Amino acid sequence: MSQSTVPAVILSAPQLAENIGAVARVMANFGLSDLRLVRPRDGWPQERAWASASGADWPLDQARVFATLEDAVADLTVVLATTARPREARLPVITPRQAAARLRAESALGQPIGLLFGGERAGLTADDIAVCQAIVTAPVDPRFRSLNLAQAVAITAYEWRLAEAPDAPAAFRSGPAPADQAALRGFQAQLESELDGAGFFHPPEKRASMVRNLRAVFGRARLSDQEVRTLRGVVTALAKGRGRVLAKLAAKAGEPEPPGDC
Amino acid sequence: MSQSTVPAVILSAPQLAENIGAVARVMANFGLSDLRLVRPRDGWPQERAWASASGADWPLDQARVFATLEDAVADLTVVLATTARPREARLPVITPRQAAARLRAESALGQPIGLLFGGERAGLTADDIAVCQAIVTAPVDPRFRSLNLAQAVAITAYEWRLAEAPDAPAAFRSGPAPADQAALRGFQAQLESELDGAGFFHPPEKRASMVRNLRAVFGRARLSDQEVRTLRGVVTALAKGRGRVLAKLAAKAGEPEPPGDC
Repeated sequence: MSQSTVPAVILSAPQLAENIGAVARVMANFGLSDLRLVRPRDGWPQERAWASASGADWPLDQARVFATLEDAVADLTVVLATTARPREARLPVITPRQAAARLRAESALGQPIGLLFGGERAGLTADDIAVCQAIVTAPVDPRFRSLNLAQAVAITAYEWRLAEAPDAPAAFRSGPAPADQAALRGFQAQLESELDGAGFFHPPEKRASMVRNLRAVFGRARLSDQEVRTLRGVVTALAKGRGRVLAKLAAKAGEPEPPGDC
Repeated sequence: MSQSTVPAVILSAPQLAENIGAVARVMANFGLSDLRLVRPRDGWPQERAWASASGADWPLDQARVFATLEDAVADLTVVLATTARPREARLPVITPRQAAARLRAESALGQPIGLLFGGERAGLTADDIAVCQAIVTAPVDPRFRSLNLAQAVAITAYEWRLAEAPDAPAAFRSGPAPADQAALRGFQAQLESELDGAGFFHPPEKRASMVRNLRAVFGRARLSDQEVRTLRGVVTALAKGRGRVLAKLAAKAGEPEPPGDC
């Protein structure tokens, strides 16, 4: 089986070093590192690029500079041109999502692939686009098409990575396990018993639906075991506080205490 | 039927005015306009925000400033917190794509909705996240999680807009491995040279666009190496055949042939 590949990011005539740095940063966010610069306006290297990369130095350290776009893409088999400007080029026009699917398919075949972006002011020329296999266009509002260079890279790089890992990162999924139904039922029984004692369910013929509504609240909260224990403590504290108050009232007929904090 | 809604973008303690401007720009790109700022570090308004919005002034002109996040989201029913940092909050964690689906569903019901983003340095606090209904996280590389604020807005806003109108997938043919750009360029150079010799590009001022159109033809054809070799043979054969014809014509003092159409 072929070794899968990762897209190169080719910037044609980029202007601001800060934007090149921002591109490097978002490449690092989404697992890309092969940065190629075609005729960067202010030359290369540019210190300000590193300053704006926020530590994503490796795409900049490894960046290669080319005199022509043809040279920059010579080793690639599929290059997709990202532009928000409709052109007359007779190439397929696809969304970043479709581009990611296409690139993933080529990657799985071991094909060297690339994403091409134009400079900040002029974007891609018709000549640039003519060396590509498809045009990628984000669904921008036609009233404001001008997408920042690094934003365009962000969206296509995000789609590339999401196509590999469509779920949320594992780090987020490893929260505490939800409590089981028995634990939940034990809490609900405690709560309903205390509410019965407090005369909460009134009138009595509405008790069943009131209980159902309360159960739905806690049912959809997807509580952990720890949260169930906390809630049991909350109910106990509230009920005992109330019991204490009632006992004092009964004994002294004095003023009520303020209830405890939740 | 309810009026559909559009998400507010809420920035909690944003620091750099340039980033607020970049957020406004990408909001405009993807059809959002309700920008809410919670305790912007340098106060508001800030001229540099407008400077970096590249003409997307309206989200900035209409931006509202709030003293607390609770105030900023008081009228919203669903707020999703975007962060790349794992937290202990017991909330569902979803991708920007899943977030867009959720927001579209709420929007269709007329629910006022929002997307919450943290400041550049600290991100969102646990207290910020606690007012939200879910956590949105882009699938960043765990080795470099730090996503620029405007990039995070770009990705979620892009997904919001794409969820409204995902283009029908463009069909791509699968076939033999495509030739690389160097092989393609070699063929194109041969073809253009022969056509120059044959006086094909006429009038001369149209040569550039005729070359571009020809390149687009072969660029989108996704030629294999074998097809490139075949085409080179085709051009050679045609050129030699034409040479033969011209030789005959020259021998007989006949008139020149008319040029070919592109």
